Amino acid sequence: MTEYDRFLSRAAGQMQESAIRRMGTLLAQKRDVISFAPGYPAYETFPWAEFRDISQVLLSGVDGSVLQYGPTRGYRPLLEAILGIMQARGVRSEADRLLVTTGSQQGLDLVARVLLDPGDVILVELPTYTGAITAFRNVQARMVGVPQEADGIDVAALDETWSKLAKDGQRVRLLYVVPNFQNPTGLLIGRDKRQRLLEWAARRDVLILEDDPYRELYFEDSVSEADLRPMRADDSDGRVIYLSTFSKTLAPGYRVAWIDAPAPLAAKLEIAKQAADLCTGGLDQRVVYEATRRGILDRHLPILRAHYREKRDVMVEGLEREFGDSVTWPTPKGGFFLWATIPAPIDSNALIDRAVKHGVIYVAGEAFFVSAAPRNLIRLSFSSPTPERIRQGVARLAAAIREELAEISAPASQSAPARPEAR
Amino acid sequence: MTEYDRFLSRAAGQMQESAIRRMGTLLAQKRDVISFAPGYPAYETFPWAEFRDISQVLLSGVDGSVLQYGPTRGYRPLLEAILGIMQARGVRSEADRLLVTTGSQQGLDLVARVLLDPGDVILVELPTYTGAITAFRNVQARMVGVPQEADGIDVAALDETWSKLAKDGQRVRLLYVVPNFQNPTGLLIGRDKRQRLLEWAARRDVLILEDDPYRELYFEDSVSEADLRPMRADDSDGRVIYLSTFSKTLAPGYRVAWIDAPAPLAAKLEIAKQAADLCTGGLDQRVVYEATRRGILDRHLPILRAHYREKRDVMVEGLEREFGDSVTWPTPKGGFFLWATIPAPIDSNALIDRAVKHGVIYVAGEAFFVSAAPRNLIRLSFSSPTPERIRQGVARLAAAIREELAEISAPASQSAPARPEAR
Repeated sequence: MTEYDRFLSRAAGQMQESAIRRMGTLLAQKRDVISFAPGYPAYETFPWAEFRDISQVLLSGVDGSVLQYGPTRGYRPLLEAILGIMQARGVRSEADRLLVTTGSQQGLDLVARVLLDPGDVILVELPTYTGAITAFRNVQARMVGVPQEADGIDVAALDETWSKLAKDGQRVRLLYVVPNFQNPTGLLIGRDKRQRLLEWAARRDVLILEDDPYRELYFEDSVSEADLRPMRADDSDGRVIYLSTFSKTLAPGYRVAWIDAPAPLAAKLEIAKQAADLCTGGLDQRVVYEATRRGILDRHLPILRAHYREKRDVMVEGLEREFGDSVTWPTPKGGFFLWATIPAPIDSNALIDRAVKHGVIYVAGEAFFVSAAPRNLIRLSFSSPTPERIRQGVARLAAAIREELAEISAPASQSAPARPEAR
Repeated sequence: MTEYDRFLSRAAGQMQESAIRRMGTLLAQKRDVISFAPGYPAYETFPWAEFRDISQVLLSGVDGSVLQYGPTRGYRPLLEAILGIMQARGVRSEADRLLVTTGSQQGLDLVARVLLDPGDVILVELPTYTGAITAFRNVQARMVGVPQEADGIDVAALDETWSKLAKDGQRVRLLYVVPNFQNPTGLLIGRDKRQRLLEWAARRDVLILEDDPYRELYFEDSVSEADLRPMRADDSDGRVIYLSTFSKTLAPGYRVAWIDAPAPLAAKLEIAKQAADLCTGGLDQRVVYEATRRGILDRHLPILRAHYREKRDVMVEGLEREFGDSVTWPTPKGGFFLWATIPAPIDSNALIDRAVKHGVIYVAGEAFFVSAAPRNLIRLSFSSPTPERIRQGVARLAAAIREELAEISAPASQSAPARPEAR
């Protein structure tokens, strides 16, 4: 037997590999490629020595539950620590609202499964996080994109989209947003606009999925904590499901994130998680808990902010130096990403091969769109390479783009062999 | 807003909490309750010192990828080690058939999502593993149970069930079996019967999901490796999807298991996993890999076999001493579970409260059935308590059962207050 398609579920028939994960695979096979592709935290910032100490204590064997199955909700002391973190973000949560997840990707997946049936509509920012697109697609939801302005999602366009769908008899279940340092654009939703979104959700009877992985990684020159206040903090109507994670602030190798949701939804999400993986790794949860209890996380955050801010600066300087104003971007005020518009004749998907040849890689913008995408957008992640590699990588990218432009503008007669580098 | 039901997906509407997980929660709240409920490995057997050593090396910081995001398929050296493990079980696998999962529960969930649409039929053993029931229910599959004989699932009844469903226009997609030390019955599928199941699957064009978490934990007095040969080893027709795990042999706190599936299905399962949690924890995978590479796992298995065999013996002796032949069970030849038939007037669900009062807990048989269940079945897990606690627990269970029997057989006039212990 070799034919398995007839055994696939409808969902599996629609499943597509994530462009970013594919980049990761590609990257793993290549040498000396500078990666601006996946949003990997910088491993040199991980508190390795502290993790070693914590692991020694936890693995003493005194407490056998460290390596045992644990409650699906999560390790209780960690849940309590998360309550404190939420409080510091302006959110009064409660234990019955919280669920530890195996990374925020699991949070997205669980929310999708608990709230969306095939064909149900979810509104997303245009562009939006590919991992969310994948999770929503896997439950066969219908994603409809709403454009963003400089201060985030366009609320007028949002309501227009809603009305048009309502007229077609389509009920909107959920709005998915990343208000802080959005992935891929790096944008912030403005403070007023957050309030308007909450009002809109109440008026239109929609739930909001607020995904907040990057909020601790703000750059103090351009943004303050007040700009980062979660919508969840002002959610008097119980509309917001909030996701956050330790992957960007401690390490993604520990797969620990959390959901804060209205208690009845948290209960359903917990049951969905039981079936998905029983529980998040007990050792991982305890390591993360110890990192909060010992103050490692708090001491670490200012270091991370400075680290990523420097890398952003290096990338911005490099881009300005190499491209002048032929490439543009909104300056990231935090997070991992810079969203660049490259010269219009270039197709960012088609450019990938040439970029790899020059030893640099990025994610083509198309991966972040749920509808027709402009061809000349790229996401550059500055989080992982060293400053020196960022400089090199930008120079390589510039060389690839110059070469591509030269080829595009060359008269057809001269470009007979389609691939100039094969000449 | 307080009413969230109207936001739930159909799947979420049907989600139910696992009885075993509920027991775990109950247990966490009680003191001095001896648990025969969840199938927890004995943490005193975990190789703590070796895990400490491995963690020290891995967390040196020399290799930053240890705590980074990793490939969705899994850590390559671990995948290669799994190929070796499969070979030792008689299975020639290949890299493109393997996928590391975050525990076998995730394997069940991914297979369910990739192969089953709402209403699709999956055949299961009667009784079967609750975690599988939950995973199949969450994709709204229709589960149909097939009775078991002393040597496992009844193949004649299986084909009858298939034919009846076919007559009703229902296509059977999948058969789910746990051939080695089945959960909850502890039964083995006989060697001949495994062959007949493969032939049946080819004849009826059904895929087989072979779940094999306990196979290394056999008791050498009553079973040999040859009895444990996976159906996957003789799967010339490409019908079998095989699951196994390190949770029972190393520690469940490391959430590391695997799927071996025909390559086209493995590719789909990988995409489903991307959306589910991106990747299994990198550190966990490396710890497990190191435990295989350093020979820790191999040295450990004979110790585990002896450990659980002793506990089985203690439980069996206790049950014989306390109950004579008023309670019966098939003697487990491996694994964690003893499946007991208690005296017929007793309802094992109703008995739970009294058992907890006596300081012992088990799982009522009903949790393992997808259709009407006999009321007088219980699953006793002997894996986790010490021998001394097993003896005590069996004595407590016997006291609870005697009390329950006395109450049931007492004339109605004497049992006016429904709860004798409140007198």
